[in-house]
Amino acid sequence: MGVSGNRWNFGVLPKGSRNLITDVPGVRVGQVTLSGEQMETGVTAILPHEGNLFRSKVPAAVHVINGFGKSTGMMQVQEMGNIESPILMTNTFSVSAAIDGALTWLMERNPEIGDTTGTVNPLVMECNDGTINHIRMRHVTEEHALQAIANAAEDFEEGAVGAGRGMRCYGLKGGIGSASRLVTVGEETYTVGALLLTNFGAKADLMICGEPFGKQIASGEREIDKGSVIVILATDAPMTCRQLGRCTRRAQNGLARTGSHTGNGSGEVVVMFSTQNQIPHFPEEAVLEGKFLHDDKLEQFFKAVTECVEESVISSLIHAETMVDRRGNTVHSLSEYLK
Amino acid sequence: MGVSGNRWNFGVLPKGSRNLITDVPGVRVGQVTLSGEQMETGVTAILPHEGNLFRSKVPAAVHVINGFGKSTGMMQVQEMGNIESPILMTNTFSVSAAIDGALTWLMERNPEIGDTTGTVNPLVMECNDGTINHIRMRHVTEEHALQAIANAAEDFEEGAVGAGRGMRCYGLKGGIGSASRLVTVGEETYTVGALLLTNFGAKADLMICGEPFGKQIASGEREIDKGSVIVILATDAPMTCRQLGRCTRRAQNGLARTGSHTGNGSGEVVVMFSTQNQIPHFPEEAVLEGKFLHDDKLEQFFKAVTECVEESVISSLIHAETMVDRRGNTVHSLSEYLK
Amino acid sequence: MGVSGNRWNFGVLPKGSRNLITDVPGVRVGQVTLSGEQMETGVTAILPHEGNLFRSKVPAAVHVINGFGKSTGMMQVQEMGNIESPILMTNTFSVSAAIDGALTWLMERNPEIGDTTGTVNPLVMECNDGTINHIRMRHVTEEHALQAIANAAEDFEEGAVGAGRGMRCYGLKGGIGSASRLVTVGEETYTVGALLLTNFGAKADLMICGEPFGKQIASGEREIDKGSVIVILATDAPMTCRQLGRCTRRAQNGLARTGSHTGNGSGEVVVMFSTQNQIPHFPEEAVLEGKFLHDDKLEQFFKAVTECVEESVISSLIHAETMVDRRGNTVHSLSEYLK
Amino acid sequence: MGVSGNRWNFGVLPKGSRNLITDVPGVRVGQVTLSGEQMETGVTAILPHEGNLFRSKVPAAVHVINGFGKSTGMMQVQEMGNIESPILMTNTFSVSAAIDGALTWLMERNPEIGDTTGTVNPLVMECNDGTINHIRMRHVTEEHALQAIANAAEDFEEGAVGAGRGMRCYGLKGGIGSASRLVTVGEETYTVGALLLTNFGAKADLMICGEPFGKQIASGEREIDKGSVIVILATDAPMTCRQLGRCTRRAQNGLARTGSHTGNGSGEVVVMFSTQNQIPHFPEEAVLEGKFLHDDKLEQFFKAVTECVEESVISSLIHAETMVDRRGNTVHSLSEYLK
Repeated sequence: MGVSGNRWNFGVLPKGSRNLITDVPGVRVGQVTLSGEQMETGVTAILPHEGNLFRSKVPAAVHVINGFGKSTGMMQVQEMGNIESPILMTNTFSVSAAIDGALTWLMERNPEIGDTTGTVNPLVMECNDGTINHIRMRHVTEEHALQAIANAAEDFEEGAVGAGRGMRCYGLKGGIGSASRLVTVGEETYTVGALLLTNFGAKADLMICGEPFGKQIASGEREIDKGSVIVILATDAPMTCRQLGRCTRRAQNGLARTGSHTGNGSGEVVVMFSTQNQIPHFPEEAVLEGKFLHDDKLEQFFKAVTECVEESVISSLIHAETMVDRRGNTVHSLSEYLK
Repeated sequence: MGVSGNRWNFGVLPKGSRNLITDVPGVRVGQVTLSGEQMETGVTAILPHEGNLFRSKVPAAVHVINGFGKSTGMMQVQEMGNIESPILMTNTFSVSAAIDGALTWLMERNPEIGDTTGTVNPLVMECNDGTINHIRMRHVTEEHALQAIANAAEDFEEGAVGAGRGMRCYGLKGGIGSASRLVTVGEETYTVGALLLTNFGAKADLMICGEPFGKQIASGEREIDKGSVIVILATDAPMTCRQLGRCTRRAQNGLARTGSHTGNGSGEVVVMFSTQNQIPHFPEEAVLEGKFLHDDKLEQFFKAVTECVEESVISSLIHAETMVDRRGNTVHSLSEYLK
Repeated sequence: MGVSGNRWNFGVLPKGSRNLITDVPGVRVGQVTLSGEQMETGVTAILPHEGNLFRSKVPAAVHVINGFGKSTGMMQVQEMGNIESPILMTNTFSVSAAIDGALTWLMERNPEIGDTTGTVNPLVMECNDGTINHIRMRHVTEEHALQAIANAAEDFEEGAVGAGRGMRCYGLKGGIGSASRLVTVGEETYTVGALLLTNFGAKADLMICGEPFGKQIASGEREIDKGSVIVILATDAPMTCRQLGRCTRRAQNGLARTGSHTGNGSGEVVVMFSTQNQIPHFPEEAVLEGKFLHDDKLEQFFKAVTECVEESVISSLIHAETMVDRRGNTVHSLSEYLK
Repeated sequence: MGVSGNRWNFGVLPKGSRNLITDVPGVRVGQVTLSGEQMETGVTAILPHEGNLFRSKVPAAVHVINGFGKSTGMMQVQEMGNIESPILMTNTFSVSAAIDGALTWLMERNPEIGDTTGTVNPLVMECNDGTINHIRMRHVTEEHALQAIANAAEDFEEGAVGAGRGMRCYGLKGGIGSASRLVTVGEETYTVGALLLTNFGAKADLMICGEPFGKQIASGEREIDKGSVIVILATDAPMTCRQLGRCTRRAQNGLARTGSHTGNGSGEVVVMFSTQNQIPHFPEEAVLEGKFLHDDKLEQFFKAVTECVEESVISSLIHAETMVDRRGNTVHSLSEYLK
């Protein structure tokens, strides 16, 4: 639901009805949250459409802002320009569990995978939640990934949930944030949605809608800008993978406006897909037909991406509850400062 | 006309009727050859179609194999996925003259450029012909570039002509080489054509159809593999710029089979365009329609690129006449060894 | 001299003594400004050090934020990790004149270029000043480029000068802006400097230090975010070309904080060099020695780049004088709004 | 041991004493081979040096020739220019098991990982052995990966072993192949080694030292060029990650000379590391010292990479034994045709 009812207003474009990535028709999000002794982590799954993802792939692009990360599956997205699996997010050391979950889910639905046709490319994104979660214990299992996928729905929670359970952002409690924007081209209105896993930034650097909020709440000693952020973008506008790639490169604008300088140890990866012009795994014809926006019409989509990403960061901070990290330090919710 | 009537046969795919890049319908090539005192250089121009190139752009991709070169215009091709100018080739220090020629030609045909619409992106490729040509004298002028464009036709010469006049390849006389292949997908037959500017390799390394020809003709002292090569590829198959990019990355296969290890000082750039799915500068609709091959159908195009590029290298060597370099050394034609 | 004596303060790091790119020892900037009937353009040259640039190359990297541009020379910088020429900036259709100037200057100082050694790679960056300057007339000549290089000094003007003469940024008069920051690592203090050619953004989007300044001064109808920006970064910190590349990718943070969403038609290119660990063209030894910062120590450099770039944009706007464009519209200086 | 005692001789450079990647001092290879009912697969591990890989990282680069693959860990290698884990190879659906093995091994040796310092980046490469192995059954476990690492030694087998157990290459039995070359620069002699996992190509396309061997042994119907290939390169020459990257881009030359056109569905990834200039995880000084070859001296390394890779492909074919695939078809060893 993004950020609302506060003093901030992110950008100028109209928002979707939920102000979530699921405003893009067909997109669903499911999560599993693990909470217990030394365990504060989880899985978040994004399903690009309701059909068979392997047999009907979505055009897609990825962009690496800073590559200090262990996310997997991007190489094939870049080569083939499509996504053929759920997009899973989890902690750094649970990438393997998420891969296994995605494979199991995809193989169940497609008995031909690895038998009479080729393999399939799971897309798993990660951030390191090791300050709050005991990441070395690798709590996430294949079953958690399967459950997150099974939970996929249009409504989902933001904040300290799913993969975002143990994340920390701008010295505050981070996690899952989402927002959406509407872009009208001629007589058509399209939706752009963002979902972020936020785990980056130093407290003193936090900016909210241009306000140097972090300076007001940071005390003394500078921390370093560490951690990572994953940005998932979706649209129902007809774009080629090259055009989606152009959009992904605008995500950095939104992140930058929240104050970060993109830290050395940050894994910052952006993924974007369009639900239009799906590509069949088993094509009936050698030549496919498609419809695509002229590049001159992308301008407002670039603004939409910038706005969505900025708002999603702040939304993750507002929705995340206050927690205590592995060393007993309190990690505050931004909402505490807004009362 | 590629290589024919010799003992070699490059690959297995059928050739186009001319065995030249101009077998792709609409593609034309024009050249200007400069020859005189300390002057052995020129310009080669490739026109992707017969219409207004700025107003009807061709989908395109570029690939850098080794970036030791001064070719220009590739950045915008990568971002926008299209070419909107003639493709010019010349010597390294005449890139500026060729840019000027392209600009003049494009501005004459499009008075709106730089006035009521944006600018235009000339694509100029180069190799260093400084062993044979006195490159510091910058013999090529804007007018030569304009003349090369004006000379564009379906028939053109290979060998020591145009931009290839002063080039040296595998220790022999290099220059312009071209070839084409036919690829049938279902009931449609498409053409892939290549035109190369060859200026790379060491004599002892030359391989022709797997035959270690260079070892037989090289004498003693190893030279180093220096110089560059430009590869222009064209097709009338409907491909997206991503797919064209995949094709460009197969050009290295063809080059490698002629024996080079891709030298340190080599500028090796590949450009490919499709004449299908042209993109209007002034679109009538926000949403464009297109037709594209499924990636599963690209297999034979990858083979076609590999074969065309290999044959074009050897064709440039066979067609180039023997010349004497600036220091009085004879640079032999491969054809001398084939009598 | 960046932005000072105003209500804004960009970031937290200390500034260099001039608050200009020339705070990096050895770096000099020279400019030529052309002003007359339908002519408002020029050339800006950055010289990385005072020695022979070809024989002693500086480690360098380039990064393309949005590739709708005609800048040239980047391919070789990426392959070889160095710069061996002055960096020239001018208008889009004068790239060829600037190449010629750079070549003449480099060949005069290095008679071996193109004769007994290879060629040289001019680095020329551009923006389209066609709203104010009659760009089709190609006013800039080789001699102007040579004069800009000859004018190189530690002191230089910002605003509507040199290549910035006819530029337009956020609907205001843009041009040349510069700033610097100091970064202390252990007992060493290093300098990071930026010089920008600003020609991008829509008025309503302008943000200054988080303040939505553009909204206050924009009237009615939204313009689109068009035009381009060139970012040149310098440092005396010892960094490899990979590390310089990491820094270049932070320039987008600074640009984003001034409000742009990175427009469709924008050529946004970032170049960075270090004056340390220069690479000889004619090495005395096969193995070179170097010193480099550990990546953990890059954190504050990333912040410095972000801050410098943001301040340089605003500095270009503050220093540029009000001008009238080719169609008689006034293009205001930001300084008019600050009285 | 590469290819010896046959009629072929790959290239001109001298070979290392073993003609294996382990000729590079400190490099070791370990393997686990799984063979049984519907199970023909395994793991191959390459250890860049004998010390603590996480605390002393090796400079490295990766290059994607064709990105249809699921290998993981490359993003961080590209960003940081180093490798900090064993390099594991296995089948496509066992990437997760190999990640788990690498993590367990690294965490055991470095209790600070994920606790007081950041995470670690496992590098896992894969090919699809699904024609011979029942890949959907995911036979490989974390323990197999650990065992492969534990088996690391200077001597190792080539052919249908380790990750290569179930691979198929040029319609013949593929698997693991390795070779090495010596490069002398001044008074120093360096080693370049390659280890390949071969699983690509169509039988009719196979070329051996320029000989069209595949045409002689292929019968009738063309198969398509499918499958993948992983290339691991090592050297003890002092190179920066940029220079290692330049070397990786020459691997395609070696592959191309064995006849492939780089198929549509091929995951072709190249990794190279140098054992020199290791980078400490916990640096004692902010500024590190290094020694690096001048780029002019890379020429013979490019040739060495080309030669090693070509020979390694053929070596994998010669050493692999004849097997029967899941559908009862015999997959022949190349050695059968050489008797």
